[in-house]
Amino acid sequence: MRMYDIIKKKRDGGELTTEEINYFIGGVTDGSIPDYQISALCMAIYFRGMTDRETCDLTFAVRDSGEKVDFSAINGIRVDKHSTGGVGDKTSLVVAPIVASYGIKVAKMSGRGLGHTGGTVDKLEAINGFRTTLSDDEFIGQVNKIGLAIVGQSKQFAPADKKLYALRDVTATVDSMPLIAASIMGKKLAADDDCIVLDVKTGSGSFMKTVDESRELARIMVDIGKRAGKKMVALITNMDRPLGYAIGNSLEVIEAVETLRGRGPADFKEVCITLAGYMLSLAGKGSPEECKQLARKAIENGSALDKLVETVKAQGGDGALILDTQKFAKSAYSHAVKSPQSGFIRSVDAEAYGLASLALGAGRNTVDDKIDFSAGIILSKKTGDYVAAGEEIATLYSNNVAAFEVAENRLLAATELSEEKPVDEPLIYDIIE
Amino acid sequence: MRMYDIIKKKRDGGELTTEEINYFIGGVTDGSIPDYQISALCMAIYFRGMTDRETCDLTFAVRDSGEKVDFSAINGIRVDKHSTGGVGDKTSLVVAPIVASYGIKVAKMSGRGLGHTGGTVDKLEAINGFRTTLSDDEFIGQVNKIGLAIVGQSKQFAPADKKLYALRDVTATVDSMPLIAASIMGKKLAADDDCIVLDVKTGSGSFMKTVDESRELARIMVDIGKRAGKKMVALITNMDRPLGYAIGNSLEVIEAVETLRGRGPADFKEVCITLAGYMLSLAGKGSPEECKQLARKAIENGSALDKLVETVKAQGGDGALILDTQKFAKSAYSHAVKSPQSGFIRSVDAEAYGLASLALGAGRNTVDDKIDFSAGIILSKKTGDYVAAGEEIATLYSNNVAAFEVAENRLLAATELSEEKPVDEPLIYDIIE
Repeated sequence: MRMYDIIKKKRDGGELTTEEINYFIGGVTDGSIPDYQISALCMAIYFRGMTDRETCDLTFAVRDSGEKVDFSAINGIRVDKHSTGGVGDKTSLVVAPIVASYGIKVAKMSGRGLGHTGGTVDKLEAINGFRTTLSDDEFIGQVNKIGLAIVGQSKQFAPADKKLYALRDVTATVDSMPLIAASIMGKKLAADDDCIVLDVKTGSGSFMKTVDESRELARIMVDIGKRAGKKMVALITNMDRPLGYAIGNSLEVIEAVETLRGRGPADFKEVCITLAGYMLSLAGKGSPEECKQLARKAIENGSALDKLVETVKAQGGDGALILDTQKFAKSAYSHAVKSPQSGFIRSVDAEAYGLASLALGAGRNTVDDKIDFSAGIILSKKTGDYVAAGEEIATLYSNNVAAFEVAENRLLAATELSEEKPVDEPLIYDIIE
Repeated sequence: MRMYDIIKKKRDGGELTTEEINYFIGGVTDGSIPDYQISALCMAIYFRGMTDRETCDLTFAVRDSGEKVDFSAINGIRVDKHSTGGVGDKTSLVVAPIVASYGIKVAKMSGRGLGHTGGTVDKLEAINGFRTTLSDDEFIGQVNKIGLAIVGQSKQFAPADKKLYALRDVTATVDSMPLIAASIMGKKLAADDDCIVLDVKTGSGSFMKTVDESRELARIMVDIGKRAGKKMVALITNMDRPLGYAIGNSLEVIEAVETLRGRGPADFKEVCITLAGYMLSLAGKGSPEECKQLARKAIENGSALDKLVETVKAQGGDGALILDTQKFAKSAYSHAVKSPQSGFIRSVDAEAYGLASLALGAGRNTVDDKIDFSAGIILSKKTGDYVAAGEEIATLYSNNVAAFEVAENRLLAATELSEEKPVDEPLIYDIIE
């Protein structure tokens, strides 16, 4: 088999065989295929696409390129939720405790944030003492005992994806549906869950800019997951604005806790209830509607919050912070961003909001950057709200007073006003089963 | 400027600016752009194509990436002919002396053969003593004195093309019209001719497999040449069969000399007369038809043969070989290839014929291979001819008797018979001016 022939076949619109795809990913993994051939094939795939069968084979090859985890020692049904990444997305902190409170197992291995999107593990590290690294035995033991554990990805999951992504990133071949699907699902399937709910974010703050694109990506990923024997569902959710009002690590933990107390923002709460509902439903707890009711109940009766506190304590975190979020360390400085004009907020560039938060110290530009856990943004106004000239639209928090100017400019530039109240966009565009 | 943005722009169907193309080729030349970005852009160009303006800019950038020659010291109009490469193509050995015999200057820098196609310089080296390397002063002095000199390319012409071609060759991005045009013309324009006649070979023995492709390539190259201030014309010629009967270095020199004596094969002679006619016409010697008459006359009156002898002697070659081609060294072995069946030769795969000749020792697999000048093939039958079962279709020549089996098998596999006489394909499909 020759890589040249594989490139030419795809270039000419052919369908690659399983063997050809395995040969390709094998060569990516062991370094035997040179970068220039990999990037040429990625560009050919960009133009020609892949059939569902090819995309599935590619995903499985990516999954099989590295370590995998074995959750067979976990008793009970294992459910996970995976988001394609957004701004202010702290849903995992809410949905995982809700689902675990019903005895469903959530063995969560989360990524760290990079660029404008945050990572669940970073948010949890805002809690003093919280250990995001557990041994396999500790991890599985905790899941079996309390139903929930959340750690950082320490395994060498899907190294082929790491190599591929680095090349795609510099050769303008990121925006290819089969390559995106194989990248996300290749890593996801290296974990060992029974059911997966995908949260495909759509809009300015995410990878997919249109609902149609998201729908197609969701359809492909659900198909791949089912072919791998998983129970699957995907939600297409709105990321044209940040979810909730908080962006930044401890600020988002606080908002998640407030939501578990029944005091969260309506939009964020709705997305959490829906995600948790589908997770419970896939796990066999009833219809999606019935399970959404269960999710609401777990908030109302406090069992979900209790589960979060139990988890934080089990992983060495300071449970008192969850019980009284006033105790979280605060930034040394804050700054109110005021609207220069009056009008309705017509749209915001959620990605730019994420970048503003990054500038305040809440994220990483490179993997080695240190995070300022208390830094971030609390929005006062969101899309659809009226704002008067001089009225505050957000408060910025940082320990670096010099960062306010950049962040404020980003935020204002990313906020568009109009005279008329804009039409409400749905929060959840579609469900792909 | 960033290479990423250039790739993305072309991927999305945009038109690259002159500055972007210069940046790209500059980075290819100095090595500052990594191979994986070059191959990604080549694949994007394969799919999106290039406008004539972009192709022209690319060609000029390739031309300007290395050395160029200055022919200003040559007195008179300088004309060259360039073939896209074929099997058994010894036209330069005939047309250059014809044209030079009318006082037009032909300062020819030729390539060497690789794979199934031969090179003019290799053919000339079959003549004892012929020097294919001259100093610039010798070269220009000889052209001024006798009107013709033929040397190998010793200059570092268009190094960007060398790098690009090597990458395209392993990433399935060779078959892109603008990249082919820029490669051919980038090198060609590094020489300093006033008029260029392009011979765009079409069919199994050449780069372009269909007449329409050839026409498009010719159109682009003529356009580029004109934009560079050259007088241009392109002939689309048939390479579905070898030109003439001889394939191999000294065998082709002999056939060229026979043609200059008026005894050459009709097909080969017609192509030579037409090419020489257009060369003379571009140089101002009259209409194409008038100039074809001039070309015929130069053969009839022996002046073209005289010019070849004069050139061979001027470059140290043994003129006696040209005057009596029986004196050429012969291969130690010959072998008659007989047809296993009877019928009309419907088509031949000219490329496979070239590869058969290569197997006999007449060509190079790699640039370091040594050529057996006497090796090759003399066809007895060509497309359209009737052949009886057991009748000879070709004679193979080699100093390596072990090579006959491979060569015979290739030849027979590449020769298709039919019961009916096939329709005659034209030798010259089109003229693009």
